[in-house]
Amino acid sequence: MHLLSCPTRAVWITIGLTIVASFQTVNSIGDGLPMLRLTKTLALTTLFAWPMAQAAEVLPAPLLQLDDKFSHHVLVAEKSTHQLHLFQNDNGKPKLVKTVQMATGKKAGDKIFQGDHRTPEGVYQMTEFLTHEDLIKRHGKAGEIYGVGAFVMNYPNPIDEREGKTGGGIWIHSTNDETRIDKGLDSRGCVVTANVDLIELAKYIELNRTSVVVVHNLNYLKSDAWESERANILKTVSDWASAWQSEDITTYLKQYDAKQFTDRTRGNYSAFSQYKKAVFSAPGKPEVNLSNISIMMANGYAVATFIQDYKATNLADVGKKLLYLKKNEYYEWKIVSEVWTKSGIEPSEEELNKVAFQPSMRFFKTLNPEQIMEIIPANATSATQSASN
Amino acid sequence: MHLLSCPTRAVWITIGLTIVASFQTVNSIGDGLPMLRLTKTLALTTLFAWPMAQAAEVLPAPLLQLDDKFSHHVLVAEKSTHQLHLFQNDNGKPKLVKTVQMATGKKAGDKIFQGDHRTPEGVYQMTEFLTHEDLIKRHGKAGEIYGVGAFVMNYPNPIDEREGKTGGGIWIHSTNDETRIDKGLDSRGCVVTANVDLIELAKYIELNRTSVVVVHNLNYLKSDAWESERANILKTVSDWASAWQSEDITTYLKQYDAKQFTDRTRGNYSAFSQYKKAVFSAPGKPEVNLSNISIMMANGYAVATFIQDYKATNLADVGKKLLYLKKNEYYEWKIVSEVWTKSGIEPSEEELNKVAFQPSMRFFKTLNPEQIMEIIPANATSATQSASN
Repeated sequence: MHLLSCPTRAVWITIGLTIVASFQTVNSIGDGLPMLRLTKTLALTTLFAWPMAQAAEVLPAPLLQLDDKFSHHVLVAEKSTHQLHLFQNDNGKPKLVKTVQMATGKKAGDKIFQGDHRTPEGVYQMTEFLTHEDLIKRHGKAGEIYGVGAFVMNYPNPIDEREGKTGGGIWIHSTNDETRIDKGLDSRGCVVTANVDLIELAKYIELNRTSVVVVHNLNYLKSDAWESERANILKTVSDWASAWQSEDITTYLKQYDAKQFTDRTRGNYSAFSQYKKAVFSAPGKPEVNLSNISIMMANGYAVATFIQDYKATNLADVGKKLLYLKKNEYYEWKIVSEVWTKSGIEPSEEELNKVAFQPSMRFFKTLNPEQIMEIIPANATSATQSASN
Repeated sequence: MHLLSCPTRAVWITIGLTIVASFQTVNSIGDGLPMLRLTKTLALTTLFAWPMAQAAEVLPAPLLQLDDKFSHHVLVAEKSTHQLHLFQNDNGKPKLVKTVQMATGKKAGDKIFQGDHRTPEGVYQMTEFLTHEDLIKRHGKAGEIYGVGAFVMNYPNPIDEREGKTGGGIWIHSTNDETRIDKGLDSRGCVVTANVDLIELAKYIELNRTSVVVVHNLNYLKSDAWESERANILKTVSDWASAWQSEDITTYLKQYDAKQFTDRTRGNYSAFSQYKKAVFSAPGKPEVNLSNISIMMANGYAVATFIQDYKATNLADVGKKLLYLKKNEYYEWKIVSEVWTKSGIEPSEEELNKVAFQPSMRFFKTLNPEQIMEIIPANATSATQSASN
C-alpha cells in the first residue's frame, strides 16, 4: 500500500473494511464454511482505483459506485437547471459524457400525488420502451405529443410507496413540439427532451438495468467526502452479506431499520424478522455471493443494486437485488426496503460475446426523427389521455 | 447587457427580478412613495458579477451570497471529513482561504438532545469569546482542556428550538491534548481544532457577525444551479421587502410559511399576522431599506442576514435582521422564523476608518499557544464540568 499516493482517512476506512472482509473470507475457509465472495467491486476497485483520486476533484454525490452491469451509463436529471446528464462508468467512478436540455413537470417540487404535475425525485430504473408506433396505437393522434418514443420509469418505487406517493406513468420521452423544451416547467411530470437527444441517449440505455437519478440540484462532493459516504453504505451492505453468509441473525437484522422497514411480501419488520429467524435456523449453511454492486443516492435515500447469487442445501438462485437504505439518526445506513427480481440479469448480446457494453441503435432504427414519426395515426380524431400524471 | 458573456437561465431570472425591483422603484417615486432601496447586494452585484461565471465552476452550496459586513469570512465545518474551512467573500462569492483538521462530537449525526455527544448541523453565528483565563476561572483545572480559548455558537438557533432540539454550550475551541484532533469523533459536541489553528482562524472572526456553517457533507453546485438557488431565495426576500414597503399585507404574509412560522415574541402565524395587519393599517407609509445581504443554507433551511433600516412616521430603527427560510412543497422559499437584533451592527474599527476588514490579532495577544496557556489554575483540584453538552 505504501507505493500509492496519500489515501485519505475515508479511503483507509474503505481499505480497512476490505481487509476485514478478506480476513473473514480466510476464516470462513478455515472453518470449512462456504466462501463469502464480495467480488470485483468491493475488493479490487476499492484497493486500486480510489487512492489515486485527487483531493480537489469533485464527483456527483448521487453516483457513489458505478459498475459495468447495472451502471455502465446512468442518466442524471437536474430539475433546477433543466439539464439531463449522461454519465459513464470510469473504473467505478462517474464521468460526464453528454448534457442535453429537458423540460420537467409544470410545477416545481418533488412529486407527491396523482395529477400534481411535478417530476418525482429519486433513483429509478427504466423498465419499458414505447415506440412511436406503440404510442400512436395506445393514444391515437394524442400519442404524437411523445415524439419518437418513451422510456417508462418505475415510479412509484418502494420508497415512494412507503411515503404514500401516488400517480404513475412517469416517462422520459421526446415531443412533436420542441419549443416545449426551453419552457423548462412544462410537462405533467415527465422528463421531455428533443427527439435527436432521446435517440442519442437511447444508445446507452438497457431496460431494467440503466438508472435515471432525478434531483432538484445535482450536488457534487470532494472525493474524500464522496469516498466516505460510499464507504458507509458499503459497510452496511458488507455487514449484511457477511451476517447472512454466517447466519448471524442479530448482526443481519441490525442492518435493517426496525421502524421504517417494509417488505412487499412479508410486511413490516416484525413479520420479516420472524420469517428470517426461521430460515436462518433451518439446517445447512448458505453461500452468498454479491457482485456488480452499483450505489446511487438521491432524495434522502440510497439504492445498492447487485447480482445476488444464493446457494443453500435445497435451493440455488441468482437474481438482481435492490437494497433501499436510509441513514438513521447516528448516520448508519439501514435497509428500509428490498426488491429481488430476475429482470435485468439475462445476459446482453455483449455479455454473451464477452465484450464490454457498446452503445448501439437498440431502440431506434434511424437517427432521423422525421422518419420515425411518419406513421399516421389510424384514428386521427382519438384523444385518449396518457397515463402520465 | 449584450456585451456580457452568455448568462445562464438562472442569471436571466435574477436579472429579471432586479429589473422588476428597479421598475417598482421608479413606480414608487412616480407615486410619491418613499423609495425602496434594495441596495448594493441585490442590484450591482447581481448585474455585474454573476454573468461572468464559468458554467463548469463549482461553488459551495451553503454559501449563496457573501457580503463585506456579515460574511467577509465564513467558517464551514464538514463533519464527514473533519475539515474546517475558512472561506472569504470574493465579490459576493465564496473563495477558499484555508482548511484545518477538527474533531467533532463522539457520535455521528445531527445533534438532537442534551448529552447526545453530537455536533449540531446548521447555520450559526459566533456570539462570545472565552479566553484561556476565562475558562480557567470558570472551570478550574478542567478548563485546561479547551486550550487557548473558545468561541461560543448560538446553538440552539430558532430552527433548532422549533424542532425541539435541546442542549447547549456548543463551542469552537482548541485543546491541551492535540492528539484528540486526529481522532475525528471525540468531543461532547464541540468543534475542536489545534491551538495554532484556532489562533489563526480567530484573526478572521468578528463576534455576532461571522457565521459557522456546520454540515455533514459539504455539497458543491455548478454555478448555474447555485445561482438558481440564490435567485429563488432572493426573490422571497425581495418580495417580502417590497410588500412591506408598499404595505401590501397579502403579498407580505404570503412570504411566510403559515404552518411552520413561529415568532419569539408574537407566537404563531395567526397571532403574528393579526399584529402585522394592525401595523400595516396604521396611518403613514414606511420606508424599508435592506443592505449587506448574506445568504447561507444548511440542514434544510436558509438564513438571509442583512441590515434593515426602517423609517415610519413615529419610528426609525436600524438593526440586523435574520430571516430563516424553508422551501415549501412547490420549492418556494418561505419565512419560518425571524430575528431582529442590534448586536453586530455597531461599526468596527475598519468601518469607522472606512477601510475593508483586516485580519488581526483581536482575540489573542500572541501566536504562541504555550504563552497563552501559561496561566496556572488557582484551584488545581477543581473539576467543574463545562456547559458543553
